[in-house]
Amino acid sequence: MSFRTEHDTMGEVQVPADKYWGAQTERSRNNFKIGPEASMPKEIIAAFAYLKKAAAYTNTDCGVLPAEKRDQIAAVCDEILAGKLAGEFPLVIWQTGSGTQSNMNVNEVVANRAHVIAGNKLGEGKTFIHPNDDVNKSQSSNDTYPTAMHIAAYKMVIDVTIPGIEKLRDTLKAKSEAFKSVVKIGRTHLMDATPLTLGQEFSGYVSQLDHGLRALRNTLDHLSELALGGTAVGTGINTPKGYDVKVAEYIAKFTNLPFRTAENKFEALAAHDAIVESHGALKQIAVSLMKIANDIRMLASGPRSGIGEIHIPDNEPGSSIMPGKVNPTQNEAVTMVAAQVMGNDVAISIAGSNGHYELNVFKPVMAANFLQSARLIGDACVSFNDHCAVGIEPNYAGIKKHLENSLMLVTALNPHIGYENAAKIAKKALKENLSLREAALGLGLLTNEQFDQWVRPEDMIGSLK
Amino acid sequence: MSFRTEHDTMGEVQVPADKYWGAQTERSRNNFKIGPEASMPKEIIAAFAYLKKAAAYTNTDCGVLPAEKRDQIAAVCDEILAGKLAGEFPLVIWQTGSGTQSNMNVNEVVANRAHVIAGNKLGEGKTFIHPNDDVNKSQSSNDTYPTAMHIAAYKMVIDVTIPGIEKLRDTLKAKSEAFKSVVKIGRTHLMDATPLTLGQEFSGYVSQLDHGLRALRNTLDHLSELALGGTAVGTGINTPKGYDVKVAEYIAKFTNLPFRTAENKFEALAAHDAIVESHGALKQIAVSLMKIANDIRMLASGPRSGIGEIHIPDNEPGSSIMPGKVNPTQNEAVTMVAAQVMGNDVAISIAGSNGHYELNVFKPVMAANFLQSARLIGDACVSFNDHCAVGIEPNYAGIKKHLENSLMLVTALNPHIGYENAAKIAKKALKENLSLREAALGLGLLTNEQFDQWVRPEDMIGSLK
Amino acid sequence: MSFRTEHDTMGEVQVPADKYWGAQTERSRNNFKIGPEASMPKEIIAAFAYLKKAAAYTNTDCGVLPAEKRDQIAAVCDEILAGKLAGEFPLVIWQTGSGTQSNMNVNEVVANRAHVIAGNKLGEGKTFIHPNDDVNKSQSSNDTYPTAMHIAAYKMVIDVTIPGIEKLRDTLKAKSEAFKSVVKIGRTHLMDATPLTLGQEFSGYVSQLDHGLRALRNTLDHLSELALGGTAVGTGINTPKGYDVKVAEYIAKFTNLPFRTAENKFEALAAHDAIVESHGALKQIAVSLMKIANDIRMLASGPRSGIGEIHIPDNEPGSSIMPGKVNPTQNEAVTMVAAQVMGNDVAISIAGSNGHYELNVFKPVMAANFLQSARLIGDACVSFNDHCAVGIEPNYAGIKKHLENSLMLVTALNPHIGYENAAKIAKKALKENLSLREAALGLGLLTNEQFDQWVRPEDMIGSLK
Amino acid sequence: MSFRTEHDTMGEVQVPADKYWGAQTERSRNNFKIGPEASMPKEIIAAFAYLKKAAAYTNTDCGVLPAEKRDQIAAVCDEILAGKLAGEFPLVIWQTGSGTQSNMNVNEVVANRAHVIAGNKLGEGKTFIHPNDDVNKSQSSNDTYPTAMHIAAYKMVIDVTIPGIEKLRDTLKAKSEAFKSVVKIGRTHLMDATPLTLGQEFSGYVSQLDHGLRALRNTLDHLSELALGGTAVGTGINTPKGYDVKVAEYIAKFTNLPFRTAENKFEALAAHDAIVESHGALKQIAVSLMKIANDIRMLASGPRSGIGEIHIPDNEPGSSIMPGKVNPTQNEAVTMVAAQVMGNDVAISIAGSNGHYELNVFKPVMAANFLQSARLIGDACVSFNDHCAVGIEPNYAGIKKHLENSLMLVTALNPHIGYENAAKIAKKALKENLSLREAALGLGLLTNEQFDQWVRPEDMIGSLK
Repeated sequence: MSFRTEHDTMGEVQVPADKYWGAQTERSRNNFKIGPEASMPKEIIAAFAYLKKAAAYTNTDCGVLPAEKRDQIAAVCDEILAGKLAGEFPLVIWQTGSGTQSNMNVNEVVANRAHVIAGNKLGEGKTFIHPNDDVNKSQSSNDTYPTAMHIAAYKMVIDVTIPGIEKLRDTLKAKSEAFKSVVKIGRTHLMDATPLTLGQEFSGYVSQLDHGLRALRNTLDHLSELALGGTAVGTGINTPKGYDVKVAEYIAKFTNLPFRTAENKFEALAAHDAIVESHGALKQIAVSLMKIANDIRMLASGPRSGIGEIHIPDNEPGSSIMPGKVNPTQNEAVTMVAAQVMGNDVAISIAGSNGHYELNVFKPVMAANFLQSARLIGDACVSFNDHCAVGIEPNYAGIKKHLENSLMLVTALNPHIGYENAAKIAKKALKENLSLREAALGLGLLTNEQFDQWVRPEDMIGSLK
Repeated sequence: MSFRTEHDTMGEVQVPADKYWGAQTERSRNNFKIGPEASMPKEIIAAFAYLKKAAAYTNTDCGVLPAEKRDQIAAVCDEILAGKLAGEFPLVIWQTGSGTQSNMNVNEVVANRAHVIAGNKLGEGKTFIHPNDDVNKSQSSNDTYPTAMHIAAYKMVIDVTIPGIEKLRDTLKAKSEAFKSVVKIGRTHLMDATPLTLGQEFSGYVSQLDHGLRALRNTLDHLSELALGGTAVGTGINTPKGYDVKVAEYIAKFTNLPFRTAENKFEALAAHDAIVESHGALKQIAVSLMKIANDIRMLASGPRSGIGEIHIPDNEPGSSIMPGKVNPTQNEAVTMVAAQVMGNDVAISIAGSNGHYELNVFKPVMAANFLQSARLIGDACVSFNDHCAVGIEPNYAGIKKHLENSLMLVTALNPHIGYENAAKIAKKALKENLSLREAALGLGLLTNEQFDQWVRPEDMIGSLK
Repeated sequence: MSFRTEHDTMGEVQVPADKYWGAQTERSRNNFKIGPEASMPKEIIAAFAYLKKAAAYTNTDCGVLPAEKRDQIAAVCDEILAGKLAGEFPLVIWQTGSGTQSNMNVNEVVANRAHVIAGNKLGEGKTFIHPNDDVNKSQSSNDTYPTAMHIAAYKMVIDVTIPGIEKLRDTLKAKSEAFKSVVKIGRTHLMDATPLTLGQEFSGYVSQLDHGLRALRNTLDHLSELALGGTAVGTGINTPKGYDVKVAEYIAKFTNLPFRTAENKFEALAAHDAIVESHGALKQIAVSLMKIANDIRMLASGPRSGIGEIHIPDNEPGSSIMPGKVNPTQNEAVTMVAAQVMGNDVAISIAGSNGHYELNVFKPVMAANFLQSARLIGDACVSFNDHCAVGIEPNYAGIKKHLENSLMLVTALNPHIGYENAAKIAKKALKENLSLREAALGLGLLTNEQFDQWVRPEDMIGSLK
Repeated sequence: MSFRTEHDTMGEVQVPADKYWGAQTERSRNNFKIGPEASMPKEIIAAFAYLKKAAAYTNTDCGVLPAEKRDQIAAVCDEILAGKLAGEFPLVIWQTGSGTQSNMNVNEVVANRAHVIAGNKLGEGKTFIHPNDDVNKSQSSNDTYPTAMHIAAYKMVIDVTIPGIEKLRDTLKAKSEAFKSVVKIGRTHLMDATPLTLGQEFSGYVSQLDHGLRALRNTLDHLSELALGGTAVGTGINTPKGYDVKVAEYIAKFTNLPFRTAENKFEALAAHDAIVESHGALKQIAVSLMKIANDIRMLASGPRSGIGEIHIPDNEPGSSIMPGKVNPTQNEAVTMVAAQVMGNDVAISIAGSNGHYELNVFKPVMAANFLQSARLIGDACVSFNDHCAVGIEPNYAGIKKHLENSLMLVTALNPHIGYENAAKIAKKALKENLSLREAALGLGLLTNEQFDQWVRPEDMIGSLK
């Protein structure tokens, strides 16, 4: 590998000759060899591109940056957003907790890439765009990184998480309606209980996701607040007048998302409660998904020796030695994602609680965990939807068997023969392994016709609309 | 101890002669000797009193319970709410996960106490009010316990948590205004940075709590949904028409809180995402409190060898061997509470994710953790407010010393002598242990008068409104 | 209520006239009204009694405390240990994070109670025993409270946790042996798989608990290290020579547990990794118990429409409207305990990570969570053992039905007719709802006799010893 | 991209023409588009290479696999271990929870690569080595994946985690010795306390890491147990006699680590308590590292307005506008890692608790979290060591200033002038902003010479060895 020499205030650094990054990025690469390379989420890099472009526009509007520089900066930002510079961001999550080095990585790449776009050779001559004085103008890592966190988080929630959940929610809603007349046994404490319809059972899942979506949307207002303009400690030192409001407007325009400047910049640098809050909603959704995916795999269990009340799609060959074995693999992916998100929530809470004075320096770990959770939930919902939920069908035979066997239908006899007589029937049936009908007739408590007339599961499920 | 004999469908049970509870409560006492007695939160018992009274009123309105029974049930419920029967609820959290036994505990106490109020002797004769047929009419543990959870949780949040947080928030807001002209050094990465005012610093805490309150209030809508009317599996079996809507209205009336019937009863029994959601907001507030209480104790640290920029009240004698030692004990209580709430959040999430089919059977553990968190946050905020926050005062000497020593004020010279010359001053000052002024004059880069004119911390804090 | 006046270095305090505690305890009561009164675990108070007595003996041995004072102190400590002064410790967990106020509570009670034992009237005259100079001699809250944590934690683990787990482990072991010939279907991914014996299934639970016990015992060495002798900051200021070693020996003698002085007192005050470590093992056991209790309730589910392969005891009447309904209530208590312990682990980890400089000030919250977990696990294991595990019996009919229905037995035909032919049988059976035998004979791939000879589940379970 | 057609029992699949993987891998790629591609840890793939090779050797030894096949399988495994086939494992963590598809990925790559090594063209003709019948012989995903987990986890702990921690521990030990005479003020509750040496302070960190290493090593015994030989449900169906013991011996030989066959295979498939246990120790170490890294950055804070008692290396240029600003960036990386590990612990615990019957299907998420934690701790310790710890030096001026200012030195006067007089001095000093000497002389309580003689911090630190 060949190198070129770059400088910063601490001296010379050897940088790979073909890379746009500069001295400070290279120092970070060398100083933080922790975990796999380039782990800083690419969504954060994209968010930086939005904000650097917005800052350039605002700086020009405020009269502190020439339009020519603005346009050169914006051009590179657009390249980053188009994914053209993917190999230029080698830094890891586990760097300085303010994310300064990734901010500088972007600054350096923009400056050097603009230099090359302008027809110069990388590493030769002074760049027209200065990483700090131009790209980072009116900014500090302390306000850019949290701004990038909010942009990336909000975008992921809107682009991936919510659509994924909604897709699954809509499928479950359709199933709930399709199954609205399929009467089946209910189970509480895992034990046989009074009946309900399969549609009612699925309606609970829909309701969970609806509540989860509402909870997640409730958190977006906090997430829409941007720290940019607070600079070093929240006072906005070295920003032109009106900069904070305007730069948020540009970001809103470029991302097409309702960002606005944070009312209080001191909080926005020193705490990341918006991330804590929004991830709390993701965690709630993970809790819901764990329940839903668990239920569906238990209902589908078998094929012969489980609960067997629904069929789920058969996506992969079963075991090489156990033909006919279909595993609820999509449910497994979803529940693993749920466990991950619940763990990530703790990492985020701990990180969020440990800010000191004017700065929280757990920013990258918060960003990485949030983005992972938001991505995984969205992706897993789509995967579960497409490869499992859409194909769920009732196993009518299984449902019928369980419903007919159930002793809990005896509840319907209470008004006719009294609780005590009903109980006698149930106990006799259980003890002697009889059907309810056999036990009832055996005790001479009612006639075959009366049994048909009174023990009707379909009448036990409709007390509520 | 003397006993009386009570019966249930499994046979006879010996119950302490002077206790109102019956056979099922006693069985639970014997079967679940886990942890200290009577750990089931008393707020849950009170919530049951509200709901049993509301159910009685609704049942009478619906024509399924005589008014005389309604009034007898309501009278005992009022006694419970007045705290008169405190010793009658001996059960533990660690019982059946549906809370059935605490539901029965209330049913039995109401029936037996009504018997005594009516002039009978405890344990003699058949009670006019039947624990199941009357007190529990149109109910199941499966819908009463989650209803009690929501009542108790909502009430605690409204009565204790929010007022406590608001009290602290108001004090911090007042401090923020009082300290708005106190210029001090900022710190990022724990290191000296550009200045801000003490009021600005405190405004960040206010903003955190404001966001936390908003987040908490956002969750109340979900928490206002009541499961009651769903009975055994969510279908509402054995409830009269219109019961669910009306019973929620009565609960709203009795508690003066905006409860309404849950739109989907299947979710309301099988999942407790409302508790997960609302506790997520409590956890966010815990995260905020950890930051705030940490900052305040670090700012107050010393008295001689710490940061020493504020004074906090001296509430207790210091160490017997170390006179003058004041410890930030209120901050310690708050941060311990924060750690507890963050742990409770995990317990609640795990519990919430493990429902099966038509019922989540981790109800008591969810209720207990929620109520503890909500109580502790409210109480701790009041305690911290009254014994610490209200007494916070700037330590002007400490603030002045740090501000004057700070090398970061050199930033103000950038526009006048250029970044490189400013850097020379800072480096010389650090290396030779000089003040900025000494270093600047020593280098001959500016005059004493220019230093006075240009290095003005009070001009470095006002870029934002 | 009548009061007496007590003094400390901050002035006068009114204390309830009949209570042994003094000014500093009363100040803490007033300053920390957070959560229910007297929440400081009573095991911590008992541990203080051991250590105060041990300190008195050591001080006398070292020549710094008269034997008469030693004996008076020891006499009150013995009363505390006998439970005679239970109402004298009103403080809460949420006080100063060093537990200083509970240390002073013990000091004050010992001094005043000794005064009364000696024939004086409470509050009259100067006490012969001084709370600080005598009871607290050669001690600081900073080393006493962590010592009390270790004593209380170690004792709880030895007295409650391990015996409880062992009891359950032994029962499960006996069940594993009793069920060693009960061949049943296996389930992976919740789906039907090749057979194993019920005894093998239970042996996995035994193995989990054995590993858990081993893990827990591995942590006891760290927990046996006592901070006492480190005093204020770990240097042992104001202790006589040899005090630290000797006082640990006395504590070991009085508690009959292998305590020793911590090799490094600085860690012992500033970090509580021993609590983190040991609770990590409790959390592992909680994880195991969640699996075991879940499995057992799923295996017992039904009675008609679940898995139904084992019977568990019927401890309480079922639902009033659903006769025959037995709920796995003990399993529910165990799994709720597991969720709590997993949450407590997070609280403890956060608390343990937040020590600063020479002192961790999250001691009470760590102690309270540890003791709750250790108590709950022990109690829950005993409860689950006595009311569930001992009564577990195979449901032979259910086991037989599932085993015979299973398509996975086809695996046994692979060596005889080849995988592809075996697969044809399984697929035909599933599709046409036939037994394996019917499908095999229908395809003409083997005879009835061959089927009997080759498809023998009992031959499929013994490849390993 | 060009494709070739592969088959499995469900039909044809189009696979990228140049890839060695087969139909089942490709199905998984298509069915699980969750998060970034190829997230299954590469250490798991390497562990599979060890175990496939070991299985081949054992199968040959047991007479069920020709030596020629063994050698071909082993040759590809060696290529995998040499990193030559890195692009052939595209699957994600979020697949089936048994990791079946990654097991098949390895099986397919081995078979196809062997085919090519033998001189054939990929996708042409039948492979001599069959993915299931040969590479997977005597195995099931259910026992291979957990075996791979243990191999990968154990290796990471030995190769990365422990050496990293030891490196840091040794440096801190050397610092502790180098600083053993540097007397400084102690701090408890963040407040000034009696003195200790900087070496003593650092010795606490060493002790924490020593205990952490011991705790981690204690868990290795459980981790050394291998599931291999249990096959589908733990019974070892389809394995030759003696296979389980022998295959573990081969793995031990190939990895040079003390693996042995698990005594109980049912636990080994259905629960992963060994992972829970071992990660519990990693979490404890994270807790320790949070404390250590926090302390060091607080001690280094400043340079002018913080605690400033130590210097840490200056690794990167400070802020562009704030010259002289050095941030404790390595500490920030370490504390972010600590937060991550604490979150991962929750994910692992939840995953570990949710196994059902004969199989835990959260295997990949457990493996991924464990390996991330173990890697990050090891890497972060090395990074922190090399770029921070080795360069820590006392800031003698700062230490002296704080020590001399401290009022807590008054403690040394207690034996000479009594506690009350000493208290008067301290109070006067604090109130009037005097030094202790000034206050003492001002009160006329002792002479200048006596002060020199009695107030000697270096005599206050040595009560313990």
